Amino acid sequence: MTARSYTIVGVGAIGGYYGARLASAGHPVRWVARSDVEHLRRHGLSVTSPRGDVSLSGLEVCGPDDPVPGPTDVVVVATKAHDNAALVPEVARHCGPDTVVVVLQNGLDVERPLAEGLPDLRVLGAMSFICSAKVGPGRVEHLDYESVTVGAFSPDGVAVGVTDDVAAVVDDLSGAGVPASGIDDLLVGRWRKLVWNVPFNGLSVVLDAGTDELVGDHDARALVRRLMEEVVVAAAAHGHPLPAHAVDTMIEHTEAMTPYAPSMKLDHLAGRPLELGPIYDVPLATAASVGAPMTRAEALAHQLRFLDRRNRSAAGAP
Amino acid sequence: MTARSYTIVGVGAIGGYYGARLASAGHPVRWVARSDVEHLRRHGLSVTSPRGDVSLSGLEVCGPDDPVPGPTDVVVVATKAHDNAALVPEVARHCGPDTVVVVLQNGLDVERPLAEGLPDLRVLGAMSFICSAKVGPGRVEHLDYESVTVGAFSPDGVAVGVTDDVAAVVDDLSGAGVPASGIDDLLVGRWRKLVWNVPFNGLSVVLDAGTDELVGDHDARALVRRLMEEVVVAAAAHGHPLPAHAVDTMIEHTEAMTPYAPSMKLDHLAGRPLELGPIYDVPLATAASVGAPMTRAEALAHQLRFLDRRNRSAAGAP
Repeated sequence: MTARSYTIVGVGAIGGYYGARLASAGHPVRWVARSDVEHLRRHGLSVTSPRGDVSLSGLEVCGPDDPVPGPTDVVVVATKAHDNAALVPEVARHCGPDTVVVVLQNGLDVERPLAEGLPDLRVLGAMSFICSAKVGPGRVEHLDYESVTVGAFSPDGVAVGVTDDVAAVVDDLSGAGVPASGIDDLLVGRWRKLVWNVPFNGLSVVLDAGTDELVGDHDARALVRRLMEEVVVAAAAHGHPLPAHAVDTMIEHTEAMTPYAPSMKLDHLAGRPLELGPIYDVPLATAASVGAPMTRAEALAHQLRFLDRRNRSAAGAP
Repeated sequence: MTARSYTIVGVGAIGGYYGARLASAGHPVRWVARSDVEHLRRHGLSVTSPRGDVSLSGLEVCGPDDPVPGPTDVVVVATKAHDNAALVPEVARHCGPDTVVVVLQNGLDVERPLAEGLPDLRVLGAMSFICSAKVGPGRVEHLDYESVTVGAFSPDGVAVGVTDDVAAVVDDLSGAGVPASGIDDLLVGRWRKLVWNVPFNGLSVVLDAGTDELVGDHDARALVRRLMEEVVVAAAAHGHPLPAHAVDTMIEHTEAMTPYAPSMKLDHLAGRPLELGPIYDVPLATAASVGAPMTRAEALAHQLRFLDRRNRSAAGAP
């Protein structure tokens, strides 16, 4: 039996890291990039990590104008979730009738545009808990943690259990040394990840602070906890209740974490747009629609939009 | 009939401005200062203002170790409201049995420590709506607006109407050309002022923005409005309902205002402690105690404490 082949769309902190692990474990990996195509072809991909560095060369890199040699078994979408509908044509190029699409992004309902655009394919969602950053073209720095939770997308949000597709992707990741697990209810995984993203992504930008400062300060930590509690209440109201210890676990993990600047802070520093839709807008609208408005998170989102607008207007972005 | 004599405690943006107006109108004014005593004696006090500049010299200045020549009719407390209980001995030195104490500060319940420390005296509260700043020792820059609302303090918070004392202070301010009015219920005035202070003081620090940016941005303005609405709800729950148009009026005034950095932002930039107790902590506790928790304002207060702590720790303050 040959190892399943993967296409990784987006060679950043997430796609670069997990793709490199899969490639090291013997999976054929195709890399779909935009700006870094030539760099990746010439210099390959390098990952520094406490788990051991990885250096890959001779990559199969596919740019937007390159022909596609054929489908792969799995396509992993690991870009920022700014406009997943716009990714459909690129993802479709790498898919055959049995290809599984894995949406490895933050946020709520990020699978839907791809599932609607590729109605004949099975779509999974995946949540990564990792501290990593893209530090240059083809260069990923992994600092701490790595784990992936995988669940199957269903249009009506009903839990469909750990499908064969989910189990297969979990197997591949586990075989590559990545702690991975399947989850019965994808939306439980999505909300659980938001318990971390909603406070830390936003506050790292608004307060210009790392995760260590936020959990180490009496008031920032109190606000982190309040924001987390709002997400927990919303998840339950949405019919996807989280484990009772979700907040404490996330705080403990963050305390034990190497001090870290979340990707939203790096995006802000670089003048790139912030991933506000999937991490704030969609969860806020969902929470409000089920009678569990997240008022503090909404205030944070307003602050982020103000800062993002000023930041990118100063940077001359459109 | 001679003009009522005033002691102004705190020669900053507020005390300096209104004291100069009263002095210009012929009231004997004694100035109680700490660090600026010698400077005020030598160089006097100057106010630049679109209403006309004022320059005063030959001031009666009283430092902490100077003897006090006798009581004045009115003592105006115009310091920051960090620790009003600690001001009682200084205020007491300028009081006779008929002296009226006017607490011209921001925040809720700022009169109480002075009323409890000076139980034989009548205590008033006063709210100033003004854009002014202390730009140096003895130098006040007035940019826009000026008005004072005065009400009588009562220990149980019950409205006591416009007392003779209130009317007298309003008369003096009006005679000095300052738009002034008495208010039946001091706490209505206090909450109404918080409708402005809670959003603009805090957001100017957290978002590093002037009032014009905050009302001019779609998201910042939405958050300003939400914060204001929380204050309005809390005031009503506390038994001191505000006029129906309170939020719109404050937003309109701020739109029409010369772009302005609130005093909390200036304090932050200078590494001085922020006035968080009277503007956030006391209102938050009061609102929570009457079943109208101000969740967004609480989140903002947490952010401010985090920033204040880091700011003053970086500045080497204790």
